[in-house]
Amino acid sequence: MAKPVLVVGGGPAGLAAAHSLASIGRQCILVEKEDQLGGAPILSGYAKLVPTGEWAKDAIGGMVDRVTGNDNITVHTGCQVTSFEGEAGSFKVEIPGAGSVEVDSAILCTGFSHFDSMNKPEWGFGTFPDVVTTTQVEQMISSGAGVRCPSDGRKPKRVAILLCVGSRDRQIGREWCSKICCTVSANMAMEIREELPDCHVYIYYMDIRTFGLYETKYYWKSQEEFKVKYIKARIAEVTSDGERLIVKGEDTLVKRPITIPFDMVVHAIGMDPNVDNARIASLFGVQLEQHGYIAEGSRYSAACQTSRPGVFVAGSATGPETIDDSISQGKAAALAAIEPLSSAA
Amino acid sequence: MAKPVLVVGGGPAGLAAAHSLASIGRQCILVEKEDQLGGAPILSGYAKLVPTGEWAKDAIGGMVDRVTGNDNITVHTGCQVTSFEGEAGSFKVEIPGAGSVEVDSAILCTGFSHFDSMNKPEWGFGTFPDVVTTTQVEQMISSGAGVRCPSDGRKPKRVAILLCVGSRDRQIGREWCSKICCTVSANMAMEIREELPDCHVYIYYMDIRTFGLYETKYYWKSQEEFKVKYIKARIAEVTSDGERLIVKGEDTLVKRPITIPFDMVVHAIGMDPNVDNARIASLFGVQLEQHGYIAEGSRYSAACQTSRPGVFVAGSATGPETIDDSISQGKAAALAAIEPLSSAA
Repeated sequence: MAKPVLVVGGGPAGLAAAHSLASIGRQCILVEKEDQLGGAPILSGYAKLVPTGEWAKDAIGGMVDRVTGNDNITVHTGCQVTSFEGEAGSFKVEIPGAGSVEVDSAILCTGFSHFDSMNKPEWGFGTFPDVVTTTQVEQMISSGAGVRCPSDGRKPKRVAILLCVGSRDRQIGREWCSKICCTVSANMAMEIREELPDCHVYIYYMDIRTFGLYETKYYWKSQEEFKVKYIKARIAEVTSDGERLIVKGEDTLVKRPITIPFDMVVHAIGMDPNVDNARIASLFGVQLEQHGYIAEGSRYSAACQTSRPGVFVAGSATGPETIDDSISQGKAAALAAIEPLSSAA
Repeated sequence: MAKPVLVVGGGPAGLAAAHSLASIGRQCILVEKEDQLGGAPILSGYAKLVPTGEWAKDAIGGMVDRVTGNDNITVHTGCQVTSFEGEAGSFKVEIPGAGSVEVDSAILCTGFSHFDSMNKPEWGFGTFPDVVTTTQVEQMISSGAGVRCPSDGRKPKRVAILLCVGSRDRQIGREWCSKICCTVSANMAMEIREELPDCHVYIYYMDIRTFGLYETKYYWKSQEEFKVKYIKARIAEVTSDGERLIVKGEDTLVKRPITIPFDMVVHAIGMDPNVDNARIASLFGVQLEQHGYIAEGSRYSAACQTSRPGVFVAGSATGPETIDDSISQGKAAALAAIEPLSSAA
């Protein structure tokens, strides 16, 4: 009987990989460092997902249920692999509590870390309680509490969403684009407008990157049906006049300074490489690319390969990624992991 | 023995799907309407691909070779499925020349059609010989002929690449974004500068959408290492002063009309739904989404599914897509196609 496949990380990519392998009769071992499966959408309490509009707890929760109830999948939560040795076809893995197991191959679905807005202090997070992150707003919506100003619980009348917080920002060492924040923010703006029809929502942007079919579904729709306003601006700082938050910057379309008051300011936080990536790279013997994500080989010759034969990678471990593409990549990596090595020429 | 899987379309997604299935011992039938496999990258003569920089003829050519030499894959080129009936697990397919075959499931990898620039006449294509498309420039580079003005064969000293030709343009019924043109154009601009170091290259854009890690590798690099210039503009028309092409528009950052002469103007053409999609949808009994691409179900519950059980879809058949993601989706669809139906709950 074939040895099991090790899947590291229980977010969308890992859940997809494990479920697919199990569905065609392959044994998997799924290891998740947190106490709960689901990855960022579950652990961070996301609300409605792009692009289907399903609630994260249903959509990703359903993926979790398929995996936990599966005879072909052994799930270890709250633990991390401590040793990984050997070669493709016969790796030896140490899993605390489960001892030493032999696996055929491994798929790293170790995801990303949310950017910590404390690293962008001039934009007010940590100083003003009503400056929050997209993750916090997701939680306000998904919990049913609704979008409220943390300082006093009032319904905001004016909300600004600031894009590219921790993305496209060399000053703080984050040159990459986080790919999905534009679309997620447009979606969130519509959700805020739906809950609070009297609330004005502004999105501050550099470039709007609602790529592909998201253009219609999020960019156009948010403007036309939901009257969300987009301002192309370079933001200087977020301050307060004692009563309201003040976003100061330059409107780059009219080249004029703009100073607008808001009740709530939302940081659309980017996707950093997983803070554990140095340890993960060392443990599994794989290389990182220049920004610190797990390096991926050419997808033409052999999809989802890391620098180490038999170790594959999928999802946002390789760079900012959408949930949908993470799922595709998880399944692609699952198939790559069980293809004979000779076919990956 | 399991029935074969039908793969329709021999571009990156279809090649990936067929090869993956064959690698794990499943029989496939690959049907391609053109006389040659490879899809747009081969048939349209693409040059160096995003993101690896490999030549299309090597990268995608390698994928073709793996498929044509594979005992588990029966390839039919220059033909189209004429009938598709039955249910998941037992579809009956008519393939001219091969007769009637029974398949377990089908994967539609039927791709896109390049936008025809004749539908944007005010931008000079069809009127001025030195107004060309990105596809034509790809061919100039991949053929080894080099980037030359078609009118007289001279090396251009000034080239403008116009983004969003056939994308984000409601006037001509194309509201979507074609996702990869920004990155492909930045890559092309660098290739032109590499071949012709004296040539100035300008990119006219609405928003630069070099998402994710493409930001560093294409947007920053093209500006800093290759001195490519980006102009945010609304283009009115492309005319000629008898000697050179004139691009007229409004610089939307300074709100001023700009009129700049060029030797060559390149249309970064978008990705239309496959012109055959109405026929494909009818033949395979699947639904199209509002723009005319093949509609895809929720990826959380069951990746790569069309509206018809047992019929899957991958790559740019579902909307504008990168080659890399088309390959992932091809593999994901391959796995989805062989998962038992009950697992897709």
